[in-house]
Amino acid sequence: MTESVMGYEIEESKAFVETFTLEPKGAGALDGLRFAVKDLIDLGGHKTSCGNPNWRDTHPVAAANAVCVDQLLFAGAECIGKTITDELAFGLNGENFFYGTPLNPKAPDRVPGGSSSGSASAVACGKVDFALGTDTGGSVRVPASNCGIFGMRPTHGRISVAGVNPLAPTFDTVGVLACTYEVLANAVTVLLARDIPSNVEIRAVHLLEEAFATCDAEVSDALAGPVDMIKDVFPGRVREASLRDIGEAASESGLKGWYHIYCHLQWAEIWSCLGAWVEDTKPEFGPRTRVNFELVKNMDRDTAVKAVRQRELYFSLLQDFLGPNDLLCMPTAPMLAPIKGTLGGDRTVGDYYPRTLSMTAIAGIGRLPQVTLPVGNVEGVPVGLSLLAGQGRDTFLLAAAQLLMSKCQRR
Amino acid sequence: MTESVMGYEIEESKAFVETFTLEPKGAGALDGLRFAVKDLIDLGGHKTSCGNPNWRDTHPVAAANAVCVDQLLFAGAECIGKTITDELAFGLNGENFFYGTPLNPKAPDRVPGGSSSGSASAVACGKVDFALGTDTGGSVRVPASNCGIFGMRPTHGRISVAGVNPLAPTFDTVGVLACTYEVLANAVTVLLARDIPSNVEIRAVHLLEEAFATCDAEVSDALAGPVDMIKDVFPGRVREASLRDIGEAASESGLKGWYHIYCHLQWAEIWSCLGAWVEDTKPEFGPRTRVNFELVKNMDRDTAVKAVRQRELYFSLLQDFLGPNDLLCMPTAPMLAPIKGTLGGDRTVGDYYPRTLSMTAIAGIGRLPQVTLPVGNVEGVPVGLSLLAGQGRDTFLLAAAQLLMSKCQRR
Repeated sequence: MTESVMGYEIEESKAFVETFTLEPKGAGALDGLRFAVKDLIDLGGHKTSCGNPNWRDTHPVAAANAVCVDQLLFAGAECIGKTITDELAFGLNGENFFYGTPLNPKAPDRVPGGSSSGSASAVACGKVDFALGTDTGGSVRVPASNCGIFGMRPTHGRISVAGVNPLAPTFDTVGVLACTYEVLANAVTVLLARDIPSNVEIRAVHLLEEAFATCDAEVSDALAGPVDMIKDVFPGRVREASLRDIGEAASESGLKGWYHIYCHLQWAEIWSCLGAWVEDTKPEFGPRTRVNFELVKNMDRDTAVKAVRQRELYFSLLQDFLGPNDLLCMPTAPMLAPIKGTLGGDRTVGDYYPRTLSMTAIAGIGRLPQVTLPVGNVEGVPVGLSLLAGQGRDTFLLAAAQLLMSKCQRR
Repeated sequence: MTESVMGYEIEESKAFVETFTLEPKGAGALDGLRFAVKDLIDLGGHKTSCGNPNWRDTHPVAAANAVCVDQLLFAGAECIGKTITDELAFGLNGENFFYGTPLNPKAPDRVPGGSSSGSASAVACGKVDFALGTDTGGSVRVPASNCGIFGMRPTHGRISVAGVNPLAPTFDTVGVLACTYEVLANAVTVLLARDIPSNVEIRAVHLLEEAFATCDAEVSDALAGPVDMIKDVFPGRVREASLRDIGEAASESGLKGWYHIYCHLQWAEIWSCLGAWVEDTKPEFGPRTRVNFELVKNMDRDTAVKAVRQRELYFSLLQDFLGPNDLLCMPTAPMLAPIKGTLGGDRTVGDYYPRTLSMTAIAGIGRLPQVTLPVGNVEGVPVGLSLLAGQGRDTFLLAAAQLLMSKCQRR
């Protein structure tokens, strides 16, 4: 199948594992829209590879669509295929050893980001209006930011994960990547099964100091204009906030503390979910994935149990800090999408992952919804800005983002 | 291994799939306590059968403990074995075609209830201080009520399900069954990783009219005394409430409406999670389980998608209704534990399941925590009374239940 939209062929995008057509099963808010599905989410009658050929070969054909896929089909959307994911969704790179690296069309020498790499690429290349991804530690938000598109991670537990392969269930969510804000909002509200309120009152927009400070200067510079625009749109309600404002305990180790809590708990859950298959199958992994699974296998479980306590403490501090009409604002990622092929070894372990996850961990630990908006760039390389809201305040967050985007567009 | 506590041998309880000892990995709030684990929850180095021999034989040995198990071991508890579950945790009966029916020691001619049947039996027979179960549609609450012990289903998403086989992730929770309120509270707070507040203010206890009306007269009669005691303990704050108070939309079809929403969504998720294995393995099932899987396989997915919308509407109405210092009170189950061997066929399909699930669905749809307290009986056959609190108000609920139990004991 070859088809050209916005200049890219399906093959050029390198986003797809497989293309085919699943017709809409109904009509509704998504009539006429086309979507793709991360190959971690079941489509009935197809194998789900989870980005690893041994996984594909040791698991049966999916008997049914994931519930989230059926929600979209019954709302009128058409599915055109399965998109590449980092192996087992464990990674933020977007370079799959077996399936390749989907194109980041706005920065072709850079990675699309992962693990929902193919979903981000398919949207950015104009092959679909939106795509389903999953986000455990940033796997929707980071590739959306890297590829210059819209993305949302919902409140944990609000969108069904039935038929979605687990990575770390405490953090796993199904999210959406989309070409426009309107499409994002339409697809997410279908999945949330709730409408966006027509009027929202924003009490405060908290700019998280440590998150801006963690970024490369070019990233924070690129977001200075968009942040000023937020100050114009919500006059008098935008303020600086630090981790200390969230709570003394939550600021002791800075954002690094959030990173450690997130990783320790995620690693333990990954091994609890996937360890049996790894030990039994002894699959071939790409080099980075192999190292990552050694890491989670050998981690001290006591550390993970302590991380649960810290996580629930931080969660509760965030609950108290972030009022129902508040937003948190921060860059989506601390640096530009890395150049392809540079993410092996020390740079990954020592810098890229800790800095990125320390920012994406906040929504994970807080069970919070987060949208990333493609409002900045550095010489054409996309930079995303994120808004977060309180737990369960997904439609409020969408309404607030809508207000912002519509005012931005009017300028 | 044979050992007698409270008159029952391990064998007599018929609660265990396997017994062994996992020593504590640390010391803490659960020092000296012994627990058992439902055989749906991984213990590293052991096979998890999920109550079905074909499942056991087609899945590898667990590589790690479920995170929730490690939390308990690091808090000082000792695990003594794996307990029987209904097949794949799909059922409330407690009669497993392959593994047998664990003893309900207070009513030996009756079922223990399921699907956490062995966990309830092991606690009620005095073999352990507490046990881990899972609760999707009542699988901790119903067997706890049937066996005359304490049980808690937490807020959805608050206790890690990593290493726990999914049934319907939208509703799946890990819960605890215990011999005393104190043990229940200690074990649950370890899992929640949060402490119980020392003081709580109860604003209102809502007695849900439709739930009491759904019960057999002997059940509501048995709970009249305990309900009067609640009125004494919380004077002026106990009131009748109906589904209409929760919301007009949530009362249109009575509790039956809640039952239908719950079932339709649960069935779709079960097929999305387990259908591939069922189609690929063609396992031998017990007769009831076989019928149940035919049902979920053949259900109309459109009905499930509509159920998601209804679920989120009812959820939101419950959120608005149930204030942070409110409790909802209802019987845990509408009838006494059924006599063993009577749950096949029409009675199950036409009466027991719809009535029971219409009551247990409320916590599922509302993502709410619920405790069942063994405060009633009909000629010695146990009857549980339930308290529910708002989403995330788990430690508040435990504190409120503690207040009630301590005042009851002082009388």
